[in-house]
Amino acid sequence: MKIGLCGYGVIGSKVKELTCIKNDFEVVKVFDKPIKKEELKDLYVSDYKDITNDPTIDIVVEAMGGDELPYIIIKDALQNKKSVVTSNKEVVSLHLNEFNELAKNNNVYFMFEASVGGGIPIINTLIQNQLVNNINHIYGIINGTTNYILTKMEEGKSFDEALINAQKNGFAESDPTSDLEGLDMVRKISILSDIAYHTFINVSKVNHKGITKITKEVIDSFNKDGYIIKYICESINKNNNVLLNVEPICIKKDNLLSNIHNEYNCIVLNGDNTGLLSFIGKGAGDFPTSSAIISDMYYILNNNGYKYLNLNNQVNYIDNMNDNEYLVYIEEDKKIIKVNNIEKYNNYFSARIFRG
Amino acid sequence: MKIGLCGYGVIGSKVKELTCIKNDFEVVKVFDKPIKKEELKDLYVSDYKDITNDPTIDIVVEAMGGDELPYIIIKDALQNKKSVVTSNKEVVSLHLNEFNELAKNNNVYFMFEASVGGGIPIINTLIQNQLVNNINHIYGIINGTTNYILTKMEEGKSFDEALINAQKNGFAESDPTSDLEGLDMVRKISILSDIAYHTFINVSKVNHKGITKITKEVIDSFNKDGYIIKYICESINKNNNVLLNVEPICIKKDNLLSNIHNEYNCIVLNGDNTGLLSFIGKGAGDFPTSSAIISDMYYILNNNGYKYLNLNNQVNYIDNMNDNEYLVYIEEDKKIIKVNNIEKYNNYFSARIFRG
Repeated sequence: MKIGLCGYGVIGSKVKELTCIKNDFEVVKVFDKPIKKEELKDLYVSDYKDITNDPTIDIVVEAMGGDELPYIIIKDALQNKKSVVTSNKEVVSLHLNEFNELAKNNNVYFMFEASVGGGIPIINTLIQNQLVNNINHIYGIINGTTNYILTKMEEGKSFDEALINAQKNGFAESDPTSDLEGLDMVRKISILSDIAYHTFINVSKVNHKGITKITKEVIDSFNKDGYIIKYICESINKNNNVLLNVEPICIKKDNLLSNIHNEYNCIVLNGDNTGLLSFIGKGAGDFPTSSAIISDMYYILNNNGYKYLNLNNQVNYIDNMNDNEYLVYIEEDKKIIKVNNIEKYNNYFSARIFRG
Repeated sequence: MKIGLCGYGVIGSKVKELTCIKNDFEVVKVFDKPIKKEELKDLYVSDYKDITNDPTIDIVVEAMGGDELPYIIIKDALQNKKSVVTSNKEVVSLHLNEFNELAKNNNVYFMFEASVGGGIPIINTLIQNQLVNNINHIYGIINGTTNYILTKMEEGKSFDEALINAQKNGFAESDPTSDLEGLDMVRKISILSDIAYHTFINVSKVNHKGITKITKEVIDSFNKDGYIIKYICESINKNNNVLLNVEPICIKKDNLLSNIHNEYNCIVLNGDNTGLLSFIGKGAGDFPTSSAIISDMYYILNNNGYKYLNLNNQVNYIDNMNDNEYLVYIEEDKKIIKVNNIEKYNNYFSARIFRG
C-alpha cells in the first residue's frame, strides 16, 4: 500500500524507516515544513493537498502533533476516501466523533492506536473488549514523560534535574507544559472513555492538577511512610454520571502502579465479565509509537480493523462521587489504601491519597 | 448468528447465558453427554454431526476439553465451512497447524483466544503484534490453578489445603494433574510460541517440572530471603534455536511477577520495536473465559478476525542456552536477579533461580 506521511519528526521519520524494511508499505510522499526538504529530496511535498488529493495514496499517516492543521488534513483525507492513521492524541480527543462519522460515510478506516499508550495495544483491544464487557472504570499511568520524571525524583534527582534528564533522553518535549500540567493525560483518558462509554467526552470537563509543585522533600517524606507518588488518570462511569480526573496520588509500595517505572505506562480496565485487565509497556519513544502506527496500517492492509464506534451516548459530568465509590481499587481488596495523615501533606501539593 | 455449542460444562453454560443477553448471537443446538438432556430440553443433541452438518449454523463453539472428540468435531466443522471458536488449549496445541490450514482452505475462521490466559486478550493481540515485531522471548504465569495454590501457600496454607481451596472455588479441576505437573502451561506456551515464531511447536519438546514437591517450609525459607516462588513458563527463540521451559522459579519480591496473585495471570512479550509488553488479568473462571469466546464470535460476526497464520518455520529444540542469555529479564536491568545461595534449596525441589 502507498503511504502519504504528514509530519517528519521523531515519530514520522521512524515510521518511514520501519516501513522501508517491510514489503507491504511504501512511503511515497512526505509533507512537513520546508526545513525538511533537503533531507527528504523527491519525497518532499510542501502542500498537504499533494497527499490528500493523490489518487495513488491509500493511507495518510498523520504524525505532526497539534490540533489545527492536523484536523484539516485528516478531514480532507477522509473526505477523499483515504484511510487515516494518527498518533495525535490532541486532535483525536477533540474530533474523534467527527472523524468516526467521516470514516463511516466514506467507507474507509480511521485508526488511532498510537495516540494512547505508545506501544501498548490498548485502543484496538478496548474497542474489541467493549463489545463483550460493560467497562465502568479505567485508570492508570499513561504519560511517559511525567512517570520518567517522578521515577528519577524517587531515585534522588531534583525536579529540574529529572526534567532535563527526560528531555535529554527524548522522553520530554522542549515545551513540556502539556505533560506536566496533565493535559496529555486528560486527552488520553478522554479517548479511552469515549470508546468504553460510547460517548464523546468534552476534554474541558476533565479535572486535572499538575506535578510541578512536587518536591524531592515531599517524595522522601511519603516514601518513609511506605508510599510512592504517581501521576494517575482515572475515569469512572456510574449510570452515565461520569467523573474524570488527572492528579498526582500516593500509592502503597506493593501496588502494581507503584512498580511502573520510567517511560513505562500501565492502563487498567475493569470489565464486568473479564474483571481487571492491566496492560503495561513503553508509553513513549519512537520505536513503540511507530510500531503502533504500523500495526494500524496492517489492520487496514488486511481489512480487519474495527468497524466504527458508537459515540452517541450522552453523559453527565460530575466532580464528586460518594466517597466509598470514588477510589482506585487495585487488584484485590487488601490493596486498597487508607491513609489517615493526608492533612500532613496537603500544604505541599494537591495530591489525593487512595481511599478505601 | 446461529451458534452450535459443543460442551455444556462451566464454560459452555456461561457462553449460553451471556449470549442470551446479546441480540447478535443465538445458541440453537448444544451437544453434550445424555446427562445434560433434561436441562437443555429442545436444544440438546446427542450427535455432534447434528451441529457440524446443520446448514443454518454459522459458528461451532467447542468448550469440551480433551483431545480426541474435540479434534474430530473441529475438523468436521471446518470442513463443513463453519467457523470454529474454542477454549481448548490441548486440542489447539496439538493440531493448530491442521486447523489453520483447514480454516484457510474453507475460507472460515478458526479462533482460539480463550485457550490461553482466560480473559486476557493475548492471542489476537500477539497475532497482530508479530506483524510488526520480531518476538524472541515470551514468559509469564499462565496457569490460574497453580498460581492460586502458591498464593494460598504464601498466605500460610499447606499444599493440600491450598489445593482443596482451589477446587472449592472452581479454580482447580477434580483431577488437577495437568495443572500441577505443568502440562497446561506447556500447551499454552507452545501456542504462544507457534504464533510468535511462525512455527508449530512439538509439545513433547517442552521441558517441564511440577510444583507438587514444594512445601510450606520451602516457601517460608525463600520468603525470609526476599523471594517468592512462582510457577513460570518461558520461551526463547535465538535464530530458530528454541528453548521452552515450565518450572517453579524464585523471584524477588519487588518483581512484577511476584505481585501476580491468586487466579491472575501475567504474560510478557518482548518485541524488537515495542520492547516488553505485559498483560495481566484473570486467567481462569467462567466469566473471563466465556467473555474471550464471545469476543472471538464478534470477530467472526464483524468479519475482522485474523487471516490465517504462517506456521511453516522450522526450529531446533535445545535444552540449554548460554547462561547469560538464558534468563528471565523483567522490566529493567536492575530487576534481574542474582542469587548465590541456590545450592541451599536444591535439595528441596527443582526450582531454578533467575540469573543475571
